[in-house]
Amino acid sequence: MRELPTPCLVLERDVLERSCARMKARAAALGVSLRPHLKTAKSIEVARRAADGAITVSTLREASYFLEHGVRDLTYAVGLDPAKIDACEALVARGARLTVITDDVDVARALAERDPAVRVLIEIDVGQHRGGIDAESDELLAIAGVLARGRRMRLAGVLAHAGHSYGAASIAEITSIAEDERARTVRAATRLREAGHDVETVSVGSTPTAVHAAHLGGVTELRAGVYTFFDRFQHAIGSCGEDDLALTVLASVIGVRRGEGVVLIDAGSLALSADRSMERFGGGYGEVRDLRDAPLGARVTSVNQEHGMIAGAPSSLRIGDRVRIRPNHACITAAMHAEYAVVAGDERVIARWDRVNGW
Amino acid sequence: MRELPTPCLVLERDVLERSCARMKARAAALGVSLRPHLKTAKSIEVARRAADGAITVSTLREASYFLEHGVRDLTYAVGLDPAKIDACEALVARGARLTVITDDVDVARALAERDPAVRVLIEIDVGQHRGGIDAESDELLAIAGVLARGRRMRLAGVLAHAGHSYGAASIAEITSIAEDERARTVRAATRLREAGHDVETVSVGSTPTAVHAAHLGGVTELRAGVYTFFDRFQHAIGSCGEDDLALTVLASVIGVRRGEGVVLIDAGSLALSADRSMERFGGGYGEVRDLRDAPLGARVTSVNQEHGMIAGAPSSLRIGDRVRIRPNHACITAAMHAEYAVVAGDERVIARWDRVNGW
Repeated sequence: MRELPTPCLVLERDVLERSCARMKARAAALGVSLRPHLKTAKSIEVARRAADGAITVSTLREASYFLEHGVRDLTYAVGLDPAKIDACEALVARGARLTVITDDVDVARALAERDPAVRVLIEIDVGQHRGGIDAESDELLAIAGVLARGRRMRLAGVLAHAGHSYGAASIAEITSIAEDERARTVRAATRLREAGHDVETVSVGSTPTAVHAAHLGGVTELRAGVYTFFDRFQHAIGSCGEDDLALTVLASVIGVRRGEGVVLIDAGSLALSADRSMERFGGGYGEVRDLRDAPLGARVTSVNQEHGMIAGAPSSLRIGDRVRIRPNHACITAAMHAEYAVVAGDERVIARWDRVNGW
Repeated sequence: MRELPTPCLVLERDVLERSCARMKARAAALGVSLRPHLKTAKSIEVARRAADGAITVSTLREASYFLEHGVRDLTYAVGLDPAKIDACEALVARGARLTVITDDVDVARALAERDPAVRVLIEIDVGQHRGGIDAESDELLAIAGVLARGRRMRLAGVLAHAGHSYGAASIAEITSIAEDERARTVRAATRLREAGHDVETVSVGSTPTAVHAAHLGGVTELRAGVYTFFDRFQHAIGSCGEDDLALTVLASVIGVRRGEGVVLIDAGSLALSADRSMERFGGGYGEVRDLRDAPLGARVTSVNQEHGMIAGAPSSLRIGDRVRIRPNHACITAAMHAEYAVVAGDERVIARWDRVNGW
């Protein structure tokens, strides 16, 4: 770690593997299959540890990358733009078992017309009010009716994401949101079945609700992603413990404002991201740790493109010293980097794992 | 533009070229040479239009990329970490005329010991209180004294960046900050000369101060970068006109919440960035435009990783429609993308220009 060019991502393999094992055990205990969301890690080596062959992706580029590395069972969990049907067909032609999602009858019609060999899930809004339709809506049956016309395309079920769990004020509230997510998604599945449709998949998930759901009766599949790495925000809202954060950004001290307790590092808004999700919890752009990942009692207090500023920095830090920064939001921070330097509890880099960025 | 996979960057070539020509004329009128900062564009095609052979970079990867494309005269304008001296020497061995900066006597000592064939500028703090030392400080002469020991290395002058101009409340305040930047940097140069040092370079710059400086007496070199593209923030603080924004993110509508005036697009916190610099000016994560870059009277009001939400969206938007989003901060948004689709006033893509990301 003392030789790596900075800034770069450092990933603790054993922490990652423990979190992967725990989520597998959690899904098994809940009686559902696990389809990890690889939008956080975007890495085949993480997919191999997190998944048993079935994953979720956020871009078609991720889908293509994972397929190239042998992962065939892919759910593209962002509302389908009909212009992307060609790209979906290309993935299927390469051997993918591809599942797409929609919440719109016009998209369903475009799919019915093109009839690609994909599975389709109808997206249900369970309270985030982003994508999805209400489980009780007329649209649910209208969309299902159109999708059922497919011969190669197949209506496979329903999917929901309780993204509003990130804004919950307590674990009790997350548990309540998880029950909403479960109940509304199962209700949509029930309505489809009552209308004569087969429902193979009832898919829910977000890391907070996956961790805190009381039960998942009626659900078949759990999706979550950031649990592979966790981050400051997930720790702050109670999704994990202090020792469960697998990802840090390695940075070098490039400036010391002597007598002011201010240190500059070479990780700024690009290497860390300008994510401000920690404002609810005291703020900052990352927590400063030493090379052994022990806390130094300081935060990155401001960022410019290639500069991070640490006010209240330990007086021991000198130019050229290296620190590790725990990110606020692992998905966004990781997206700025091309690879992981993998370590296992000490400073030695044991592997480099690539990532697939972009679209 | 209707065929491009979304999300992607779209760059208006003629707007870019006009801004480049204007800044060249501005530098000439101010009697200084222009050394554009390529941290915004990170593209050789932009460098060719903005620069006459001398550029500024924010990472050594940028330096390597531009050198590979024939740009030899490079200033790496982030405080040097001594661990990067090897990489600097490698650039020099490849033919670079490399200038580095420092504000620290320990770094000066490390440089004196290694004595790489680089030019060194001492960074002056002109009010941002990020990197740099005070023009009146004893450290200035102490650092200069150490740097003067170099035989291959050469103390070449002083450099400042008035980054606090971004926070100014008025153009009058920016003009005042520009005068501070000029006067303090020239004062540092004068002190060095009085101590017997040659001062070849007196370098200042930020886009707002470059645009609004009253004069640059005593300065030799102007650096600025985001003026190549401009963005919502630069427009809001008065650095450019409404028609000067060259960069947009092309996105597809992937969801319409009928009756609510809410539209989802496939550009979220990765494709747009989660930059919140526009909070002072009404907020949002980008301004929504049509394919001809005409305003649609709406903003991206929230972002998740691959979703942007537009509340108050035009009722005309349908799934599959395409929009262009003007970013808050062009440097940060562009950094998420691997290339530009270049257009010239209409929807036809006339070129693809690459970018160099990462470190």
